[in-house]
Amino acid sequence: MSWLDQISWNEGLVPVIAQELGTNDVLMFAFMNREALTLTVETGYAVYWSRSRGKLWFKGEESGHKQKVHELRLDCDADVILITVEQIGGIACHTGRHDCFFQKLENGKWKTDKSVIKNPEEIYKHE
Amino acid sequence: MSWLDQISWNEGLVPVIAQELGTNDVLMFAFMNREALTLTVETGYAVYWSRSRGKLWFKGEESGHKQKVHELRLDCDADVILITVEQIGGIACHTGRHDCFFQKLENGKWKTDKSVIKNPEEIYKHE
Repeated sequence: MSWLDQISWNEGLVPVIAQELGTNDVLMFAFMNREALTLTVETGYAVYWSRSRGKLWFKGEESGHKQKVHELRLDCDADVILITVEQIGGIACHTGRHDCFFQKLENGKWKTDKSVIKNPEEIYKHE
Repeated sequence: MSWLDQISWNEGLVPVIAQELGTNDVLMFAFMNREALTLTVETGYAVYWSRSRGKLWFKGEESGHKQKVHELRLDCDADVILITVEQIGGIACHTGRHDCFFQKLENGKWKTDKSVIKNPEEIYKHE
């Protein structure tokens, strides 16, 4: 059985946690399908499956904020993947922040406590 | 709008990544519903929703391996939660390992590279 078949796919997808090499910060959470995961391993850069757009999501394709994959791990139930990545540009989130988890629960409110490193308009400027 | 209503629930659930305080290791991945999340915040210990058993899962109730919650974070899309926890007993996984991500992809195979700290039969011994 191939390593791909050992994964317990849920409607063709597996959730993926991306963790930053070195800091161990959790950068983001997304999904991969078989093709995305295969491409991730083959290219060495994270490729996700965008559920909202219904297509492959070559992370960093527009922004340049690619994720160079250092390690892939599978959990005990074989239904979650953890990847360790070098985050190019130090920005993983589409809001221009280092990571997506910038809202902290404080006194019953979600408080943003991480700042925007680069304005999304600057990141995604296109003709 | 309450902090609970700001979460984008998916079929009543939100995925949760548990990260260890100090090491920043990703320990496990699970789900919470509103009640589980409310109880987590109120008690200060992680309570999940077990999809397989269809009921609240008071983490560590049987094993003693509770997770003392230090911080809760919400991601940019408000549909994933990251919690930082103190892992009591240093064991998060039901296999008796420190964390659930003990299988690493190496040369096209998932290779177990983290050892069992305590035998599950010892952890879950009941009459």
